[in-house]
Amino acid sequence: MNNQLLNYIHKYISLTDEEQIILLSRIKHRKYLKGQYLVQQGDICKSEYFILSGATKTFYVDAEGQEHIVMFSIENWWTSDMGSFISQTPADYNIQCLEPTELFQFSYEAVEELYIKIPKLERFFRKIIERALVASQKRIVRNFSLSAKERYLIFKKSYPQIEQRIPQYMIASYLGITKEFLSKIKSQLIQSQ
Amino acid sequence: MNNQLLNYIHKYISLTDEEQIILLSRIKHRKYLKGQYLVQQGDICKSEYFILSGATKTFYVDAEGQEHIVMFSIENWWTSDMGSFISQTPADYNIQCLEPTELFQFSYEAVEELYIKIPKLERFFRKIIERALVASQKRIVRNFSLSAKERYLIFKKSYPQIEQRIPQYMIASYLGITKEFLSKIKSQLIQSQ
Repeated sequence: MNNQLLNYIHKYISLTDEEQIILLSRIKHRKYLKGQYLVQQGDICKSEYFILSGATKTFYVDAEGQEHIVMFSIENWWTSDMGSFISQTPADYNIQCLEPTELFQFSYEAVEELYIKIPKLERFFRKIIERALVASQKRIVRNFSLSAKERYLIFKKSYPQIEQRIPQYMIASYLGITKEFLSKIKSQLIQSQ
Repeated sequence: MNNQLLNYIHKYISLTDEEQIILLSRIKHRKYLKGQYLVQQGDICKSEYFILSGATKTFYVDAEGQEHIVMFSIENWWTSDMGSFISQTPADYNIQCLEPTELFQFSYEAVEELYIKIPKLERFFRKIIERALVASQKRIVRNFSLSAKERYLIFKKSYPQIEQRIPQYMIASYLGITKEFLSKIKSQLIQSQ
């Protein structure tokens, strides 16, 4: 469990034994049930989360009550409402567990303290946020320039383990299409094989 | 010119006089003409750019030759093809000057060297990339959940100085709508005033 996080961090930076102890002493191990929320729209997102196992969805409910899925997160991914977390203002998004989910919780205070005690964590977070930004920008372009079928194929490639784990209507919401249209795409793909 | 950059950086971190000298010695001041490219799709994006004056568009040309505008950047903004820059692989996007543009160029080698010489720049870039990620995620949600008219109003608010500076068809491309539909939205807005 600790090793899962440390192995992940060591892909980007090296921590001494002492730094590892400091880091692990400042974060909390938590288990959430399926359906529980890490963050609710309107609350302040007080933590960033490193997922050890399970899956979450980040979504936004618009004025008409319609749910829009921004992202899914699975084991070895980070999740948070970044806008809310960095400015400690009310969250735009909900993050809900789609499965029983085990994670490490990095509170705002812990992260700020860790940046001071272990300055190279700045480098670590800088690098993972850069990657998240690249993924986010690619998604904007895909939504403009690719057909729903092409976006579905990229989704399958980006989240190879997830499709069996989550309901179809959520995948449709993530792709910005109806559930019926997603079924149509899938049967077209089967026929063309 | 140097002060414009240093004032911007000092909003996030403090640099000593010596650090300011190191920083300024590693970056290049450049002027580009209207129409020139900072990065071309398929080339490696070798630098990150801090814009002192002028404006750029970041765009993607799809297989059908259609142009999709990902973002505009103006004075005191950063621009680069982040995915290409961090991995030094071919760029997905073009960045072209919409006006004569003056900027500071941070080459990949300079940035890597600066992170070693001035480690607190990790914090600076971590913070500005966090903000860019928040903006990018908000744009994804807006594209799903808001009407073109609402997205146009947010565009006007986000880029208050830019609308008079760039052609309408580019704003339409950024919003993912046709130029004709943008005209319709604008005349509806005028009538409803």
